[in-house]
Amino acid sequence: MKKRKVSARSVERLSIYRRALLHGLQEYGASVYSHEIAHSCQLTAAQVRRDLMAIGYSGNPNSGYNVKRLLASLAAFLDCHNSCAVAIVGMGYLGRAIAAHLTGRPSKIRLTAAFDVDLDKIGLTFSGVRCHSVRHMPEVLADKHIEIALITVPAEQAQHVAEQLVAAGVVGILNFAPVVLRLHERIYVENIDMIVSLEKVAFFARAGQRRKAR
Amino acid sequence: MKKRKVSARSVERLSIYRRALLHGLQEYGASVYSHEIAHSCQLTAAQVRRDLMAIGYSGNPNSGYNVKRLLASLAAFLDCHNSCAVAIVGMGYLGRAIAAHLTGRPSKIRLTAAFDVDLDKIGLTFSGVRCHSVRHMPEVLADKHIEIALITVPAEQAQHVAEQLVAAGVVGILNFAPVVLRLHERIYVENIDMIVSLEKVAFFARAGQRRKAR
Repeated sequence: MKKRKVSARSVERLSIYRRALLHGLQEYGASVYSHEIAHSCQLTAAQVRRDLMAIGYSGNPNSGYNVKRLLASLAAFLDCHNSCAVAIVGMGYLGRAIAAHLTGRPSKIRLTAAFDVDLDKIGLTFSGVRCHSVRHMPEVLADKHIEIALITVPAEQAQHVAEQLVAAGVVGILNFAPVVLRLHERIYVENIDMIVSLEKVAFFARAGQRRKAR
Repeated sequence: MKKRKVSARSVERLSIYRRALLHGLQEYGASVYSHEIAHSCQLTAAQVRRDLMAIGYSGNPNSGYNVKRLLASLAAFLDCHNSCAVAIVGMGYLGRAIAAHLTGRPSKIRLTAAFDVDLDKIGLTFSGVRCHSVRHMPEVLADKHIEIALITVPAEQAQHVAEQLVAAGVVGILNFAPVVLRLHERIYVENIDMIVSLEKVAFFARAGQRRKAR
Protein backbone atom coordinates (compact mmCIF):
# COMPACT_ATOMS: atom_id res chain seq x y z
CA MET A 1 0.00 0.00 0.00
CA LYS A 2 2.69 2.41 1.04
CA LYS A 3 4.54 1.92 -2.21
CA ARG A 4 1.83 3.52 -4.28
CA LYS A 5 2.14 6.86 -2.51
CA VAL A 6 5.76 7.27 -3.47
CA SER A 7 6.46 9.49 -6.49
CA ALA A 8 8.54 8.54 -9.51
CA ARG A 9 11.19 11.05 -8.41
CA SER A 10 11.37 9.46 -4.92
CA VAL A 11 11.84 6.00 -6.38
CA GLU A 12 14.60 7.41 -8.56
CA ARG A 13 16.28 9.01 -5.54
CA LEU A 14 15.98 5.83 -3.45
CA SER A 15 17.67 3.94 -6.25
CA ILE A 16 20.42 6.59 -6.31
CA TYR A 17 20.88 6.35 -2.51
CA ARG A 18 21.40 2.63 -2.88
CA ARG A 19 23.91 3.19 -5.65
CA ALA A 20 25.80 5.69 -3.44
CA LEU A 21 25.75 3.29 -0.47
CA LEU A 22 27.04 0.39 -2.54
CA HIS A 23 29.80 2.52 -4.04
CA GLY A 24 30.78 4.01 -0.68
CA LEU A 25 30.64 0.85 1.44
CA GLN A 26 34.30 0.94 2.52
CA GLU A 27 34.11 4.67 3.11
CA TYR A 28 31.05 4.58 5.38
CA GLY A 29 31.80 1.58 7.58
CA ALA A 30 28.86 0.23 9.56
CA SER A 31 26.78 3.37 9.73
CA VAL A 32 26.04 6.42 7.68
CA TYR A 33 24.41 9.79 8.40
CA SER A 34 21.76 11.34 6.20
CA HIS A 35 24.10 14.25 5.48
CA GLU A 36 26.73 11.84 4.17
CA ILE A 37 24.28 10.21 1.76
CA ALA A 38 23.03 13.67 0.85
CA HIS A 39 26.54 14.91 0.14
CA SER A 40 27.39 12.03 -2.17
CA CYS A 41 24.11 12.47 -4.06
CA GLN A 42 24.16 16.29 -4.08
CA LEU A 43 20.85 16.55 -2.27
CA THR A 44 19.86 17.92 1.12
CA ALA A 45 19.96 15.79 4.27
CA ALA A 46 16.31 16.69 4.89
CA GLN A 47 15.38 15.26 1.49
CA VAL A 48 17.23 12.02 2.24
CA ARG A 49 15.53 11.68 5.64
CA ARG A 50 12.13 12.37 4.11
CA ASP A 51 12.58 9.76 1.39
CA LEU A 52 13.83 7.12 3.82
CA MET A 53 11.05 7.87 6.29
CA ALA A 54 8.54 7.39 3.47
CA ILE A 55 9.68 3.79 3.14
CA GLY A 56 9.47 3.32 6.89
CA TYR A 57 13.12 3.61 7.74
CA SER A 58 14.40 6.14 10.26
CA GLY A 59 17.91 6.58 11.58
CA ASN A 60 19.20 7.19 15.07
CA PRO A 61 20.31 10.87 15.28
CA ASN A 62 23.40 9.88 17.26
CA SER A 63 24.65 6.88 15.36
CA GLY A 64 23.07 7.41 11.92
CA TYR A 65 21.65 4.65 9.75
CA ASN A 66 22.93 1.10 9.92
CA VAL A 67 24.22 0.62 6.36
CA LYS A 68 23.42 -3.07 6.13
CA ARG A 69 19.88 -2.68 7.41
CA LEU A 70 19.33 0.38 5.25
CA LEU A 71 20.42 -1.53 2.15
CA ALA A 72 18.07 -4.35 3.12
CA SER A 73 15.18 -1.89 3.53
CA LEU A 74 15.92 -0.29 0.17
CA ALA A 75 16.03 -3.71 -1.46
CA ALA A 76 12.78 -4.77 0.19
CA PHE A 77 11.15 -1.64 -1.11
CA LEU A 78 12.66 -1.32 -4.58
CA ASP A 79 13.26 -4.87 -5.70
CA CYS A 80 11.13 -7.75 -6.88
CA HIS A 81 10.94 -10.52 -4.30
CA ASN A 82 12.50 -12.99 -6.62
CA SER A 83 14.63 -11.92 -9.52
CA CYS A 84 12.97 -9.82 -12.16
CA ALA A 85 13.42 -11.02 -15.73
CA VAL A 86 13.81 -8.44 -18.49
CA ALA A 87 14.27 -8.60 -22.25
CA ILE A 88 15.89 -6.31 -24.80
CA VAL A 89 14.38 -5.86 -28.25
CA GLY A 90 16.93 -4.61 -30.77
CA MET A 91 20.49 -5.91 -30.50
CA GLY A 92 22.31 -3.16 -32.34
CA TYR A 93 25.18 -1.35 -30.65
CA LEU A 94 22.93 0.11 -27.98
CA GLY A 95 21.18 -3.18 -27.19
CA ARG A 96 24.52 -4.91 -26.86
CA ALA A 97 25.93 -2.10 -24.71
CA ILE A 98 22.99 -2.42 -22.33
CA ALA A 99 23.23 -6.21 -22.31
CA ALA A 100 26.88 -5.97 -21.25
CA HIS A 101 25.99 -3.35 -18.64
CA LEU A 102 23.13 -5.40 -17.15
CA THR A 103 24.91 -8.74 -17.00
CA GLY A 104 28.09 -7.30 -15.53
CA ARG A 105 26.63 -6.57 -12.09
CA PRO A 106 24.78 -8.36 -9.33
CA SER A 107 21.15 -7.31 -9.32
CA LYS A 108 17.63 -8.60 -8.94
CA ILE A 109 17.05 -7.39 -12.48
CA ARG A 110 18.20 -10.17 -14.75
CA LEU A 111 18.50 -9.93 -18.53
CA THR A 112 16.88 -13.12 -19.71
CA ALA A 113 16.20 -12.76 -23.44
CA ALA A 114 17.13 -10.65 -26.43
CA PHE A 115 15.29 -10.18 -29.73
CA ASP A 116 16.12 -8.90 -33.17
CA VAL A 117 14.85 -9.12 -36.74
CA ASP A 118 18.35 -9.54 -38.19
CA LEU A 119 19.00 -13.15 -39.26
CA ASP A 120 22.71 -12.64 -38.61
CA LYS A 121 22.01 -11.96 -34.93
CA ILE A 122 19.27 -14.50 -34.24
CA GLY A 123 20.71 -17.56 -32.52
CA LEU A 124 23.79 -15.71 -31.30
CA THR A 125 24.53 -15.07 -27.64
CA PHE A 126 25.18 -11.55 -26.35
CA SER A 127 26.64 -11.17 -22.85
CA GLY A 128 25.46 -14.70 -22.15
CA VAL A 129 21.93 -14.09 -23.37
CA ARG A 130 20.47 -15.72 -26.47
CA CYS A 131 19.03 -13.58 -29.25
CA HIS A 132 15.69 -14.82 -30.61
CA SER A 133 13.66 -13.78 -33.61
CA VAL A 134 11.07 -11.12 -32.77
CA ARG A 135 8.54 -13.51 -34.28
CA HIS A 136 9.02 -15.78 -31.25
CA MET A 137 8.49 -12.99 -28.73
CA PRO A 138 5.14 -14.24 -27.37
CA GLU A 139 6.40 -17.76 -26.58
CA VAL A 140 9.79 -16.71 -25.22
CA LEU A 141 8.36 -13.95 -23.01
CA ALA A 142 5.67 -16.25 -21.60
CA ASP A 143 8.09 -19.11 -21.12
CA LYS A 144 10.60 -16.96 -19.20
CA HIS A 145 7.97 -14.92 -17.29
CA ILE A 146 9.26 -11.64 -18.68
CA GLU A 147 7.10 -8.61 -17.95
CA ILE A 148 9.66 -5.81 -18.38
CA ALA A 149 11.34 -4.94 -21.66
CA LEU A 150 13.83 -2.45 -23.07
CA ILE A 151 13.23 -1.15 -26.58
CA THR A 152 16.38 -0.29 -28.56
CA VAL A 153 15.02 -0.60 -32.09
CA PRO A 154 14.93 2.26 -34.65
CA ALA A 155 12.26 4.93 -34.13
CA GLU A 156 9.97 3.74 -36.91
CA GLN A 157 9.70 0.22 -35.45
CA ALA A 158 9.29 1.14 -31.80
CA GLN A 159 5.50 1.54 -31.64
CA HIS A 160 4.88 -1.79 -33.36
CA VAL A 161 7.39 -3.58 -31.12
CA ALA A 162 5.83 -1.99 -28.03
CA GLU A 163 2.37 -3.20 -29.03
CA GLN A 164 3.68 -6.72 -29.59
CA LEU A 165 5.37 -6.64 -26.17
CA VAL A 166 2.20 -5.49 -24.45
CA ALA A 167 0.15 -8.15 -26.26
CA ALA A 168 2.63 -10.70 -24.91
CA GLY A 169 2.10 -9.54 -21.32
CA VAL A 170 4.78 -6.91 -20.81
CA VAL A 171 3.68 -4.22 -18.30
CA GLY A 172 6.77 -2.03 -18.06
CA ILE A 173 8.93 -0.60 -20.85
CA LEU A 174 12.18 1.33 -20.86
CA ASN A 175 12.16 2.98 -24.28
CA PHE A 176 15.34 4.25 -25.95
CA ALA A 177 13.75 4.89 -29.34
CA PRO A 178 13.19 8.59 -30.03
CA VAL A 179 9.39 8.38 -30.23
CA VAL A 180 6.54 8.74 -27.77
CA LEU A 181 4.89 5.33 -27.43
CA ARG A 182 1.10 5.28 -27.38
CA LEU A 183 0.02 2.45 -25.11
CA HIS A 184 -2.68 1.72 -22.57
CA GLU A 185 -2.16 3.82 -19.46
CA ARG A 186 -1.72 0.75 -17.26
CA ILE A 187 1.63 0.15 -19.03
CA TYR A 188 4.47 1.98 -17.29
CA VAL A 189 6.80 3.57 -19.83
CA GLU A 190 10.05 5.37 -19.07
CA ASN A 191 11.90 7.11 -21.91
CA ILE A 192 15.59 7.72 -22.38
CA ASP A 193 16.41 9.89 -25.37
CA MET A 194 20.10 10.67 -25.54
CA ILE A 195 19.66 13.36 -28.19
CA VAL A 196 17.06 15.23 -26.12
CA SER A 197 19.40 15.06 -23.11
CA LEU A 198 22.36 16.20 -25.16
CA GLU A 199 20.41 19.13 -26.62
CA LYS A 200 19.52 20.12 -23.07
CA VAL A 201 23.19 20.02 -22.01
CA ALA A 202 24.21 22.08 -25.06
CA PHE A 203 21.46 24.60 -24.35
CA PHE A 204 22.22 25.15 -20.67
CA ALA A 205 25.98 24.99 -21.10
CA ARG A 206 25.68 27.82 -23.60
CA ALA A 207 23.35 29.72 -21.26
CA GLY A 208 25.99 29.41 -18.52
CA GLN A 209 28.62 30.78 -20.83
CA ARG A 210 26.49 33.77 -21.74
CA ARG A 211 26.12 34.48 -18.04
CA LYS A 212 29.87 34.20 -17.58
CA ALA A 213 30.53 36.53 -20.52
CA ARG A 214 28.55 39.35 -19.00
CA MET B 1 17.82 36.87 -22.13
CA LYS B 2 14.60 35.03 -22.70
CA LYS B 3 16.38 31.69 -22.81
CA ARG B 4 17.42 31.82 -19.19
CA LYS B 5 13.86 31.89 -17.95
CA VAL B 6 13.00 28.59 -19.56
CA SER B 7 13.13 25.53 -17.30
CA ALA B 8 15.03 22.33 -17.99
CA ARG B 9 11.73 20.53 -18.48
CA SER B 10 10.57 23.09 -21.07
CA VAL B 11 13.79 22.73 -23.03
CA GLU B 12 13.28 18.97 -22.94
CA ARG B 13 9.71 19.34 -24.21
CA LEU B 14 10.74 21.76 -26.97
CA SER B 15 13.31 19.24 -28.10
CA ILE B 16 10.60 16.54 -28.08
CA TYR B 17 8.22 18.76 -30.10
CA ARG B 18 10.91 19.15 -32.71
CA ARG B 19 11.48 15.40 -32.78
CA ALA B 20 7.73 14.85 -33.26
CA LEU B 21 7.55 17.46 -36.04
CA LEU B 22 10.50 15.98 -37.89
CA HIS B 23 9.08 12.46 -37.61
CA GLY B 24 5.61 13.58 -38.65
CA LEU B 25 6.53 15.90 -41.52
CA GLN B 26 4.62 13.99 -44.19
CA GLU B 27 1.69 13.52 -41.90
CA TYR B 28 1.27 17.19 -40.95
CA GLY B 29 1.78 18.89 -44.29
CA ALA B 30 2.41 22.62 -44.19
CA SER B 31 0.73 23.38 -40.90
CA VAL B 32 0.09 21.75 -37.56
CA TYR B 33 -2.22 22.47 -34.63
CA SER B 34 -1.07 22.51 -31.03
CA HIS B 35 -3.42 19.61 -30.28
CA GLU B 36 -1.75 17.51 -32.99
CA ILE B 37 1.71 18.11 -31.52
CA ALA B 38 0.25 17.47 -28.06
CA HIS B 39 -1.28 14.19 -29.17
CA SER B 40 1.93 12.83 -30.64
CA CYS B 41 3.86 13.80 -27.48
CA GLN B 42 1.15 12.76 -25.01
CA LEU B 43 0.87 16.22 -23.50
CA THR B 44 -1.94 18.77 -23.40
CA ALA B 45 -2.44 21.32 -26.17
CA ALA B 46 -2.30 24.07 -23.53
CA GLN B 47 1.17 22.90 -22.47
CA VAL B 48 2.38 22.93 -26.07
CA ARG B 49 1.01 26.44 -26.64
CA ARG B 50 2.58 27.70 -23.40
CA ASP B 51 5.99 26.28 -24.28
CA LEU B 52 5.92 27.68 -27.80
CA MET B 53 4.72 31.06 -26.58
CA ALA B 54 7.64 31.12 -24.14
CA ILE B 55 10.02 31.05 -27.08
CA GLY B 56 8.07 33.79 -28.81
CA TYR B 57 6.15 31.68 -31.28
CA SER B 58 2.37 31.75 -31.49
CA GLY B 59 0.13 29.99 -33.97
CA ASN B 60 -2.94 31.20 -35.77
CA PRO B 61 -6.02 29.60 -34.14
CA ASN B 62 -7.54 28.94 -37.58
CA SER B 63 -4.62 27.62 -39.53
CA GLY B 64 -2.32 26.36 -36.79
CA TYR B 65 1.46 26.68 -36.81
CA ASN B 66 3.43 26.82 -40.02
CA VAL B 67 5.61 23.71 -39.67
CA LYS B 68 8.63 25.11 -41.49
CA ARG B 69 8.66 28.34 -39.52
CA LEU B 70 8.03 26.51 -36.27
CA LEU B 71 11.00 24.23 -36.92
CA ALA B 72 13.12 27.28 -37.69
CA SER B 73 12.03 28.93 -34.43
CA LEU B 74 12.80 25.78 -32.45
CA ALA B 75 16.22 25.55 -34.09
CA ALA B 76 16.95 29.23 -33.42
CA PHE B 77 16.07 28.69 -29.79
CA LEU B 78 17.57 25.27 -29.09
CA ASP B 79 20.61 25.06 -31.32
CA CYS B 80 24.06 26.56 -31.38
CA HIS B 81 24.46 29.14 -34.16
CA ASN B 82 27.19 27.14 -35.78
CA SER B 83 27.58 23.45 -35.22
CA CYS B 84 28.28 22.34 -31.70
CA ALA B 85 31.24 20.01 -31.28
CA VAL B 86 31.03 17.24 -28.70
CA ALA B 87 33.38 14.49 -27.52
CA ILE B 88 32.84 11.06 -25.99
CA VAL B 89 35.17 9.77 -23.30
CA GLY B 90 35.08 5.96 -23.03
CA MET B 91 34.70 3.98 -26.25
CA GLY B 92 33.32 0.74 -24.82
CA TYR B 93 30.04 -0.65 -26.16
CA LEU B 94 28.06 2.32 -24.89
CA GLY B 95 30.45 4.93 -26.26
CA ARG B 96 30.40 3.23 -29.63
CA ALA B 97 26.60 2.92 -29.59
CA ILE B 98 26.27 6.65 -28.94
CA ALA B 99 28.86 7.49 -31.58
CA ALA B 100 26.86 5.54 -34.16
CA HIS B 101 23.64 7.19 -32.97
CA LEU B 102 25.07 10.72 -33.14
CA THR B 103 26.76 10.47 -36.49
CA GLY B 104 23.80 8.79 -38.18
CA ARG B 105 21.59 11.87 -38.21
CA PRO B 106 21.70 15.48 -39.37
CA SER B 107 22.12 17.78 -36.39
CA LYS B 108 23.91 20.84 -35.18
CA ILE B 109 25.47 18.62 -32.56
CA ARG B 110 28.51 17.05 -34.16
CA LEU B 111 30.61 14.30 -32.62
CA THR B 112 34.14 15.50 -33.19
CA ALA B 113 36.45 13.46 -30.98
CA ALA B 114 36.56 10.27 -28.93
CA PHE B 115 38.87 9.30 -26.09
CA ASP B 116 39.88 6.11 -24.34
CA VAL B 117 42.70 4.73 -22.20
CA ASP B 118 42.80 1.42 -24.08
CA LEU B 119 45.82 1.23 -26.41
CA ASP B 120 43.86 -1.11 -28.67
CA LYS B 121 41.27 1.60 -29.32
CA ILE B 122 43.53 4.66 -29.55
CA GLY B 123 44.16 5.58 -33.18
CA LEU B 124 41.08 3.72 -34.43
CA THR B 125 38.09 5.43 -36.01
CA PHE B 126 34.56 4.86 -34.64
CA SER B 127 31.64 6.04 -36.77
CA GLY B 128 34.07 8.27 -38.63
CA VAL B 129 35.53 9.81 -35.47
CA ARG B 130 39.09 9.24 -34.35
CA CYS B 131 39.80 7.85 -30.87
CA HIS B 132 42.58 9.67 -29.00
CA SER B 133 44.39 8.87 -25.79
CA VAL B 134 42.80 10.54 -22.77
CA ARG B 135 46.25 11.97 -22.13
CA HIS B 136 45.81 14.21 -25.14
CA MET B 137 42.42 15.49 -24.05
CA PRO B 138 43.50 19.10 -23.32
CA GLU B 139 45.10 19.66 -26.75
CA VAL B 140 42.39 17.87 -28.76
CA LEU B 141 39.51 19.61 -26.98
CA ALA B 142 41.12 23.04 -27.37
CA ASP B 143 42.07 22.39 -30.96
CA LYS B 144 38.56 21.31 -31.93
CA HIS B 145 36.74 23.89 -29.75
CA ILE B 146 34.86 21.18 -27.84
CA GLU B 147 32.95 22.38 -24.79
CA ILE B 148 30.42 19.55 -24.42
CA ALA B 149 31.34 15.97 -23.53
CA LEU B 150 29.67 12.63 -22.88
CA ILE B 151 31.15 10.41 -20.19
CA THR B 152 30.79 6.67 -20.79
CA VAL B 153 33.67 5.39 -18.64
CA PRO B 154 33.27 3.02 -15.66
CA ALA B 155 31.92 4.55 -12.44
CA GLU B 156 35.25 4.66 -10.63
CA GLN B 157 36.91 6.73 -13.36
CA ALA B 158 34.06 9.18 -14.02
CA GLN B 159 34.90 11.86 -11.44
CA HIS B 160 38.53 12.06 -12.52
CA VAL B 161 37.59 12.21 -16.20
CA ALA B 162 35.00 14.92 -15.46
CA GLU B 163 37.60 17.04 -13.66
CA GLN B 164 40.02 16.68 -16.56
CA LEU B 165 37.28 17.70 -18.99
CA VAL B 166 36.40 20.78 -16.96
CA ALA B 167 40.07 21.74 -16.64
CA ALA B 168 40.24 21.54 -20.44
CA GLY B 169 37.33 23.96 -20.85
CA VAL B 170 34.29 21.70 -21.02
CA VAL B 171 31.17 23.41 -19.61
CA GLY B 172 28.46 20.80 -20.23
CA ILE B 173 28.52 17.07 -19.50
CA LEU B 174 26.13 14.24 -20.28
CA ASN B 175 27.12 11.58 -17.76
CA PHE B 176 26.25 7.89 -18.24
CA ALA B 177 28.46 6.63 -15.40
CA PRO B 178 26.45 5.59 -12.32
CA VAL B 179 27.93 8.22 -9.99
CA VAL B 180 27.03 11.74 -8.98
CA LEU B 181 29.75 14.04 -10.31
CA ARG B 182 30.96 16.78 -7.99
CA LEU B 183 31.88 19.77 -10.10
CA HIS B 184 31.70 23.54 -9.94
CA GLU B 185 28.08 24.66 -10.18
CA ARG B 186 28.71 26.61 -13.38
CA ILE B 187 29.18 23.24 -15.15
CA TYR B 188 25.88 21.87 -16.49
CA VAL B 189 25.61 18.13 -15.84
CA GLU B 190 22.83 15.86 -17.03
CA ASN B 191 22.79 12.23 -15.89
CA ILE B 192 21.47 9.15 -17.62
CA ASP B 193 21.58 6.03 -15.45
CA MET B 194 19.96 3.10 -17.20
CA ILE B 195 19.84 0.98 -14.06
CA VAL B 196 18.06 3.66 -12.06
CA SER B 197 15.54 4.03 -14.91
CA LEU B 198 15.09 0.29 -15.17
CA GLU B 199 14.54 -0.06 -11.42
CA LYS B 200 11.89 2.63 -11.70
CA VAL B 201 10.13 0.76 -14.50
CA ALA B 202 10.26 -2.51 -12.54
CA PHE B 203 8.91 -0.78 -9.44
CA PHE B 204 5.95 0.95 -11.08
CA ALA B 205 5.14 -1.93 -13.39
CA ARG B 206 4.81 -4.14 -10.28
CA ALA B 207 2.73 -1.43 -8.55
CA GLY B 208 0.41 -1.41 -11.56
CA GLN B 209 0.04 -5.17 -11.35
CA ARG B 210 -0.80 -5.02 -7.68
CA ARG B 211 -3.50 -2.52 -8.50
CA LYS B 212 -4.82 -4.78 -11.23
CA ALA B 213 -4.83 -7.80 -8.90
CA ARG B 214 -7.11 -6.15 -6.38
